[in-house]
Amino acid sequence: MTTAPAMPNVYTPGAAPVAAEDEARIARRAALLGPAYRLFYEQPLHLVRGEGVWLYDRDGRAYLDTYNNVASVGHCHPRVVEAMTRQAATLATHTRYLHDGILDYAERLLALFPPALAHVMFTCTGSEANDLAFRIARAKTGGTGIIVTDNAYHGVTLATAEASMSIGPATAPGPTVFPIPAPSATNYPEGIATGFAAAVTAAADRMAAQGLKPAALIADTIFSSDGVLPDPAGFLAPAVAAIRAAGGLFIADEVQPGFGRTGGHMWGFERHGLLPDMVSLGKPMGNGYPLAGLVVQPQVVSDFGAKARYFNTFGGNAVAAAVGLSVLDVIRDEGLMENADTVGKAFAAGLRDLAARHDGLGETRAAGLFLGTDIVAQGQPDALRAGRLVNDLRREGILISATGPKGHILKIRPPLPFSLANVDQFLTTFDRVLGRT
Amino acid sequence: MTTAPAMPNVYTPGAAPVAAEDEARIARRAALLGPAYRLFYEQPLHLVRGEGVWLYDRDGRAYLDTYNNVASVGHCHPRVVEAMTRQAATLATHTRYLHDGILDYAERLLALFPPALAHVMFTCTGSEANDLAFRIARAKTGGTGIIVTDNAYHGVTLATAEASMSIGPATAPGPTVFPIPAPSATNYPEGIATGFAAAVTAAADRMAAQGLKPAALIADTIFSSDGVLPDPAGFLAPAVAAIRAAGGLFIADEVQPGFGRTGGHMWGFERHGLLPDMVSLGKPMGNGYPLAGLVVQPQVVSDFGAKARYFNTFGGNAVAAAVGLSVLDVIRDEGLMENADTVGKAFAAGLRDLAARHDGLGETRAAGLFLGTDIVAQGQPDALRAGRLVNDLRREGILISATGPKGHILKIRPPLPFSLANVDQFLTTFDRVLGRT
Repeated sequence: MTTAPAMPNVYTPGAAPVAAEDEARIARRAALLGPAYRLFYEQPLHLVRGEGVWLYDRDGRAYLDTYNNVASVGHCHPRVVEAMTRQAATLATHTRYLHDGILDYAERLLALFPPALAHVMFTCTGSEANDLAFRIARAKTGGTGIIVTDNAYHGVTLATAEASMSIGPATAPGPTVFPIPAPSATNYPEGIATGFAAAVTAAADRMAAQGLKPAALIADTIFSSDGVLPDPAGFLAPAVAAIRAAGGLFIADEVQPGFGRTGGHMWGFERHGLLPDMVSLGKPMGNGYPLAGLVVQPQVVSDFGAKARYFNTFGGNAVAAAVGLSVLDVIRDEGLMENADTVGKAFAAGLRDLAARHDGLGETRAAGLFLGTDIVAQGQPDALRAGRLVNDLRREGILISATGPKGHILKIRPPLPFSLANVDQFLTTFDRVLGRT
Repeated sequence: MTTAPAMPNVYTPGAAPVAAEDEARIARRAALLGPAYRLFYEQPLHLVRGEGVWLYDRDGRAYLDTYNNVASVGHCHPRVVEAMTRQAATLATHTRYLHDGILDYAERLLALFPPALAHVMFTCTGSEANDLAFRIARAKTGGTGIIVTDNAYHGVTLATAEASMSIGPATAPGPTVFPIPAPSATNYPEGIATGFAAAVTAAADRMAAQGLKPAALIADTIFSSDGVLPDPAGFLAPAVAAIRAAGGLFIADEVQPGFGRTGGHMWGFERHGLLPDMVSLGKPMGNGYPLAGLVVQPQVVSDFGAKARYFNTFGGNAVAAAVGLSVLDVIRDEGLMENADTVGKAFAAGLRDLAARHDGLGETRAAGLFLGTDIVAQGQPDALRAGRLVNDLRREGILISATGPKGHILKIRPPLPFSLANVDQFLTTFDRVLGRT
């Protein structure tokens, strides 16, 4: 059984000097929030302001944000703030009354999906969306088994944490969760598409041997915590056919790749030429406002709808709908999906150019503005150096983090208004840091 | 085994005439949101604006809101909207950076609890807070068994829905959930305090007989969906002793009663003179902004914190903290807890006066501005008439709903700025409606 690593890029007391006032803040934080919270960076960042692709610390120092995929249309986007304020001052109530806002938003959102994905249900977090998908999959299939990749992340509810190998062995895998190796060439030298599909079938067979029936295969369609695995586009389709052949459903977890980030398409699953049974949405959906949801095929949710009702007090409230609509407006009006494609390609090309000059820089995998770059030593994963690079870049005013089962993969996913000039700044700084770290 | 009833106060097509434009809106809603959503009232309400204790429909008609406990400091309170807007325009990021807002809010919030409840963890919904409490209880006790009342509601995640008998038999009770009769004089004629405690012990014994260990007893401290059961204050303490004796924890679910609603105390558990291991918070916490949390004793969360980390992308973000703080400010500055006490007592007294003149009006149970009134016929529950009263009041411009295992209990829990004049309006209207329905 795979055991997950400690979280990459976590603050560890004493690893580097921290200003006295931040030491006090960290102590106060531990006293108030308890032992389960973690901070980023050897020297935690004390932020006070955000704008576009920039974050500012208490001394007014600017940081180029190449990590935060929640403020996806840019930190504190004025159109989003304005939409939120206007609706919050007018009406902020729930889905047991009629309101046009949720209907207009649902219509605009569903128009971005293939017609078969015709319903949307609203939650507040991606965790809740995936958790709801599990409930609906159980009602539809009569099964309970869930297949995930072996460093997956799907949420923090009890059911989704049991399916999230990346957050550590305390919870995952739960008794009905069956992890399989992530879809990489290393794991499937015989071919990712056929190998990954065969792994799904084998996991379903293991379930059957234990007397369990499959409910679903769930996959983050960019495989972010597995190390960013986008290629070759299309490899996921045979795995989806395999879970359906075994009687289960396919849940596309678009919480990280969705809303245009991968460039060229609005959703990560579209790169694979497949039709999910359910699609979970989250992080960038409200640009920081707690808004998430689940898009479903009607025949998938009909059994659940007949047996159970769904009400999420805050999910789909009038303010959430106004915020969500404004985010879709900004993505369209500012051409952010197209920007993710253009700028993402330049970003990936620049990282590959750097790799030709720096031994420790391995493969870069990317789709739009979702990039993963391996840090290696003699061809082997070098998590220690990846951690040093993350912290050195932070000291140079650039924010990224690390990911992957071995923690050696730099994870880069900036707000979508990221420009070619921002890419240049990143590459110039990274070149310098690589030369000395 | 108890099976839960259909949801009280649910729109059923054809039960009453609905305007053509709302018929179209309902059809559009079903097409977009699917089969699991429900509307209130025979004639669903199309709301466009809220202010204080008032909601307004599309024709500008005012409704006195005596039901919505989320907009607890009043619909669209300007101080809350202003706090949200200011922070959303400045910085809206997460808990892996240092930020003073979350610390200031955590400190103010924890100051409202007994000192032993020293940590707070932030989520977005009450469901997530209860679900996290289950995870922490499992880590602390090594058990999985959960004891709940037999018409409880604790959330919509897979784990909390399995513990929510009130949302129907599709999900609850899950295999590790053990329901017991709610703490009423009818269920425990020998005495509520001793009877309810004995039921907890018996449930723990049933678990042991199945090879399970108890993790927790969870109770909404006002027992809202069980029919509003506040009295006699103190009855809950022996049940808490019983679950601890069996090796489990006590989770006080304050999602509905918390934040001053019960009058005299900030939290429902305080009426019972006990100290919970964990306290879950939700609905009124952000006055509509998706904000919730879990307050815990440090030794309860230490095992969980050692084995697992907790990160909720939106939970405790800078905007959530600013909103939460402004809600605490308004509760204090406008004396809303004290108002809930004074006005709630007058409200309950008025309902008891009406009961002396109207046969169908049974017992009223209340703590502050959380009231439940039985509708009866010859002393027996009359859910049909309760439903008629709810709909007649809606036609008269007053919003309430019904609850309880038999659906015959009127549930009244207005925004806390509710005034004595608002009570008079309710009682005058209710008197008239009772005379003819």
